[in-house]
Amino acid sequence: MPKTRLDPGPFVLPMPTALIGAVVDGKPNFMTAAFVGIANFKPTIVACGLSPTHHTCQGIAAHGEFSVSLPGPELVEATDWCGLNSGKRADKSRVFETFAGELAHAPMVKACRLAAECRVVKTVEFAVDTVYFGEVVGVYADEESLKDGAPDWQKIAPLLFTFPDKAYWRFGEHMAAAWSVGKGYAP
Amino acid sequence: MPKTRLDPGPFVLPMPTALIGAVVDGKPNFMTAAFVGIANFKPTIVACGLSPTHHTCQGIAAHGEFSVSLPGPELVEATDWCGLNSGKRADKSRVFETFAGELAHAPMVKACRLAAECRVVKTVEFAVDTVYFGEVVGVYADEESLKDGAPDWQKIAPLLFTFPDKAYWRFGEHMAAAWSVGKGYAP
Repeated sequence: MPKTRLDPGPFVLPMPTALIGAVVDGKPNFMTAAFVGIANFKPTIVACGLSPTHHTCQGIAAHGEFSVSLPGPELVEATDWCGLNSGKRADKSRVFETFAGELAHAPMVKACRLAAECRVVKTVEFAVDTVYFGEVVGVYADEESLKDGAPDWQKIAPLLFTFPDKAYWRFGEHMAAAWSVGKGYAP
Repeated sequence: MPKTRLDPGPFVLPMPTALIGAVVDGKPNFMTAAFVGIANFKPTIVACGLSPTHHTCQGIAAHGEFSVSLPGPELVEATDWCGLNSGKRADKSRVFETFAGELAHAPMVKACRLAAECRVVKTVEFAVDTVYFGEVVGVYADEESLKDGAPDWQKIAPLLFTFPDKAYWRFGEHMAAAWSVGKGYAP
């Protein structure tokens, strides 16, 4: 299959849809983000590429703490609304019921089946976005979304996001076990 | 819904399944990775958290270049095999037919419908993994996987990966348009 070259853009990976939470001026605030990934296995560190101009980032900078909550399909409108509106103009503190873990400034979304609280351990600035590296202090899940004490991803049903179509996608079907399905493969 | 606290682990996000390519000792080598995300919008920079002990990372360190190719479901066995076997012992140069873009040391997988070549612009070391930040120099897609000149994610059908179940998942159904579906939402 011949290949077509496209000019670079952030459409080289499917991405998670995450709600990044922080406390700004004493109130919980949330922004919608997709530039989120894992940076280090242990301690678990997440990397969030966010424009520091976002209202949420004022809170991250002030307290060195943030949260990552994963909305499911039933929260797609609220999640998109958080991406369309800035906490600079809209009060987002009442969009979601929140809960706290160990950190005082990393409010998590109760309606999300999986969420994590993070402490900033490093930041790296790029042209548009600053990467906030957050060490995961605690992970919180609905009991119903666990299987043998671990997240059951089919039940968590995280939304995905892609560019440049700017689309939310459902998490798909289980395909195969890793470190396993390739055992019989012969190149 | 009451929340259950879990000790931290890399199970806070659904992740992409990516084949990271580099040239080691003059030969293409590929490793399977999931700690991959976007770090900056423009120029587009990807962040890959990889243990520097990997054979592929020798090539990244030597040439400052790597590739990211997205396998679809039909490549799950080969992809998993690349995760099970190290290039230190197995010759991975014949697993995939490769192609090159502008960079000489960022071999991409022809059988993947979407791939990108990257130039390392920064590295950040954590306890286990080093984050390789790569500026995307070019994106390559099968013509059949494009719609109006942009990636059609349903056709690209990238595999996803999750911990701690160590599972490959299919990309799911289109859910909603972003910057749109939340317009009518009232918190």
